[in-house]
Amino acid sequence: MVTHRSCPGYVDEPFASLVADYPGAEAYPPGDFRVEWGPVFHRGRLDGSARVLVIGQDPATHEAISRRVLVGEAGQRVQGLLARLGITHSYVMLNVYLYSVFGQAAGYRHVKDPDIVDYRHRWLDAVLLDSASPSVSPSVTPSVTPSVTPSVASSGVTAVIALGTLAKRAFGLWEDSSPEREARSRRLHLAAVRHPTYAEGSARASGQPLEDTTAAQLADWSAHLPALGAAVSPEVTPNLRSYGESWTERDLVAIPEQDLPPGAPAWWRAVDAWAVRDGADAQEKRATIRVAVPKGARSWPTL
Amino acid sequence: MVTHRSCPGYVDEPFASLVADYPGAEAYPPGDFRVEWGPVFHRGRLDGSARVLVIGQDPATHEAISRRVLVGEAGQRVQGLLARLGITHSYVMLNVYLYSVFGQAAGYRHVKDPDIVDYRHRWLDAVLLDSASPSVSPSVTPSVTPSVTPSVASSGVTAVIALGTLAKRAFGLWEDSSPEREARSRRLHLAAVRHPTYAEGSARASGQPLEDTTAAQLADWSAHLPALGAAVSPEVTPNLRSYGESWTERDLVAIPEQDLPPGAPAWWRAVDAWAVRDGADAQEKRATIRVAVPKGARSWPTL
Repeated sequence: MVTHRSCPGYVDEPFASLVADYPGAEAYPPGDFRVEWGPVFHRGRLDGSARVLVIGQDPATHEAISRRVLVGEAGQRVQGLLARLGITHSYVMLNVYLYSVFGQAAGYRHVKDPDIVDYRHRWLDAVLLDSASPSVSPSVTPSVTPSVTPSVASSGVTAVIALGTLAKRAFGLWEDSSPEREARSRRLHLAAVRHPTYAEGSARASGQPLEDTTAAQLADWSAHLPALGAAVSPEVTPNLRSYGESWTERDLVAIPEQDLPPGAPAWWRAVDAWAVRDGADAQEKRATIRVAVPKGARSWPTL
Repeated sequence: MVTHRSCPGYVDEPFASLVADYPGAEAYPPGDFRVEWGPVFHRGRLDGSARVLVIGQDPATHEAISRRVLVGEAGQRVQGLLARLGITHSYVMLNVYLYSVFGQAAGYRHVKDPDIVDYRHRWLDAVLLDSASPSVSPSVTPSVTPSVTPSVASSGVTAVIALGTLAKRAFGLWEDSSPEREARSRRLHLAAVRHPTYAEGSARASGQPLEDTTAAQLADWSAHLPALGAAVSPEVTPNLRSYGESWTERDLVAIPEQDLPPGAPAWWRAVDAWAVRDGADAQEKRATIRVAVPKGARSWPTL
C-alpha cells in the first residue's frame, strides 16, 4: 500500500476562523466575480514551515474543483520556479481574490475594495506575522507534551513572489497599512514577477506573437532568480540557471500530493489540463466546468 | 459576514492514517471501479458525536467532486430519513466501496475481497469501537487544558442504517469478524433498509413502473421508522410519521454546510443535481463529469 500525503486543511487558528467568515457576494460583486463557485483559499504549508509566500491573482477552473489555488498550468510553472530556488514543499500560496475574476478588467476595479482588502490582510498577517496565531488551538488534545510552541506562531517566510501587477498591488497595500506590517516587509525580499500566464494574455491583447511574449516573460523570471536565490534558504540544492526562450518540460513541475485534499486523484496535480469551462453561450459557460480525466491518466481497460 | 461551518477533514487519528494508506488499483480493479476519480471516504462527524452510522454503497458523480459520500439525491433522501429520527448533525456516513462501482454487477463481485474488507473494517472500527483512537493526536497543541479526553476515543453510535444489500453484507462481515466487533454489534440497532435509489434501479431492471417501486421503497423505510426511533437518541424532536406513496419535497433534506469542505459552494449541498457523466461514447463518459451550477443558483447578472 502506498502512503499518501494530503493537505490537512484549516483546523488550527487563525485559519479555522478565516475559512469560517470569508466574504461573499456582499464584498465580491457577482457581475465581476464568479462567487457561485465558492472561495478558494490557499495552497501549501500553514504550519509555519513556509519559506516563500507566492501571491497569485484568482482561482480558475482547476482551482474551483480541487479547492486549492494555483493548481493548473500557472501553478505548475510557479512550482517550477520554486524548484529552481531549491524549494519543494516549504511555501504557501494565496491569491489576491478568493473568487475567479469575471472579465479581466474586473480584476483591476476591486483590488482596493475595503472588505476584500481587510480579509486578504488577515490571511497575509496569518502567514507573515510572527504573532498571527493565538496560542490555543480550537481542538484541544491531551497534554502529553507539556511545552510545545503553537504550530503557526512564527513565520519563516523570507521572500514573497508576487505574480503579476495585481499581486504586487495587493502586497503593497498590505505593507503600507501598518507600522508592524511595514517592519515585517523590510525583512522580506519581494520579487514582483510577470504572472505565469502573462505571455498568453499579453499575446492575445497585443497581437504580438506568443513566442515573443513567452521569451519576454521567461527573461523576466530569469532576471529575478539571483536575488530570490540569495533571499531563500533552500530545502534541496537550488539550480538558478536562467530560463530559455520558451518553456521546456523541465520548467514545469507537478503539484505535490501533500498540497491537495485527501483522496484527490493524481491527475489533479499533473501538467495536462483537466478542467475547462464549457457551454453553448455565455450564460451556460459561466455555469459549467467540464472535468475530464486526461488521456494519459485513463488507466482503465479500454471501453 | 455570514459564519460558515465546514468539515475539518481527517486531522486526528485514526483518520489521518486512514486517508494516508487507502487501497488503490491493487485492491480495486479498474475494470470494476472508477479508481481514477480517487477515493471518497466519509461524510459527517468523526469526533465521537455521531449517534447513527449510515452505510451507503459507493460514490457517484456529486461525491467525486465534493469529496464526501452521499451528497447527491440519494444523500438528500437519507438526510430526510435522519431528520425524521430527529438527527440533524450527529451522524457519520461511510460507503461499502471507496470508489464508484463501474457496472452494478461489479459491486457484488468484490464485497468480500480481503484488501477491500480489511480497510473498510478499519473505518468501521474507527467509528464504532470505543478504543479505536490512540490517545495522542498527531498535531499536539499547547497544554492549556490539563485533562481532556481524546476526541474520538468513544463511539456514541446506537444505530446503523445499512442502505441496500451490499451495505448490509458489509456490516455483517464486520460484526462476524471478531468477538469484540460482535459484542459491539449486539449493542447496536441495525436497520437494513432499501437503498435510497432502489426505486429507480429496480424499475429499470424489472420493468415495473417507477411509481410502484417508489411506493415499495417508501413502505420499507416507513416500516423501519419505529424501531429506529426507539434506538436513537434524537437531537431535535423526531417525527416518525410514515412516508407516503411517493417522494414529497419535505422528504428530502439538504446536506448541512458543516459536512462539506471549507469554501464548498452552497449548491453542492442542495437538491438540484449538478454533476453528470458526459461523453459521446463509453470511454469519454467514464472520463468526464460535467459540473453545472443549477439554474436556481445562477445568481449572477444574466449574460
